[in-house]
Amino acid sequence: MSAAQEFEAANAQYFSTFSKGELPLPPARKVAVVACMDARIDVFRTLGLQEGDAHVIRNAGGRASDALRSIIISQQLLGTREIVLLHHTDCGMLTFTDDVIRAKISAELNQNADHIAFLPFAHLKQSVVDDIRFLKESPLVLDVPISGIA
Amino acid sequence: MSAAQEFEAANAQYFSTFSKGELPLPPARKVAVVACMDARIDVFRTLGLQEGDAHVIRNAGGRASDALRSIIISQQLLGTREIVLLHHTDCGMLTFTDDVIRAKISAELNQNADHIAFLPFAHLKQSVVDDIRFLKESPLVLDVPISGIA
Repeated sequence: MSAAQEFEAANAQYFSTFSKGELPLPPARKVAVVACMDARIDVFRTLGLQEGDAHVIRNAGGRASDALRSIIISQQLLGTREIVLLHHTDCGMLTFTDDVIRAKISAELNQNADHIAFLPFAHLKQSVVDDIRFLKESPLVLDVPISGIA
Repeated sequence: MSAAQEFEAANAQYFSTFSKGELPLPPARKVAVVACMDARIDVFRTLGLQEGDAHVIRNAGGRASDALRSIIISQQLLGTREIVLLHHTDCGMLTFTDDVIRAKISAELNQNADHIAFLPFAHLKQSVVDDIRFLKESPLVLDVPISGIA
């Protein structure tokens, strides 16, 4: 089986034993988590989450600016009133720069990616500080508790 | 304890029993999953993932265009060669339009959000078709297997 077929079978099996329809749409803990996409991080296990607790937004690095659309929807339509950022040691975002990935894309795909900010960072703790500040300064984000784990 | 304090304690407990440093950075299954942020979806349990298997990108709706930065990093720097989209029934993205959320932001925050496409959709299956097509047509995304679960 391909990964996709295996995932589909797992998904069907999962929903045969659990009906998420029984849980309400708005997160019970009223929290939105923004975490890195890193394959080694199972956010539910890492943070002790139960199904229905929190929105889980994940992207490369767990960057806040890239999560803005989702955070606004989470707050405006689904009532979350806290944001928790989860960045981590040994993150891939510490290993490159915009110049490096743009050069790779130019060489291998013959494409220009200068219009994309890939949001790598050189310092883990600072990335959390920067992302908290970004959210606190955004006029589209509510004035709610924002914290970071790194 | 606040949610943030509780999450931090859970995180510390988790890493005292599990060292993700023992797993390599590139995903073992060479897959990037793009899923909705919905609080009721534990992606690892839903898809039968183990730590280290796959990048997990999550946003409101599991929309591909909003995951582009992360997908490029996943493919170019961390070697994934398959994409699986996970959208779901009873999704919040089926319940509003750009006009609705922009009007709410205007009324409640006195801010203009016309520059943000919130990416809601009216039809679940079509959202998966649209997102697969978006990725297949993107010159910055490799020609790899792309499938969707909805």
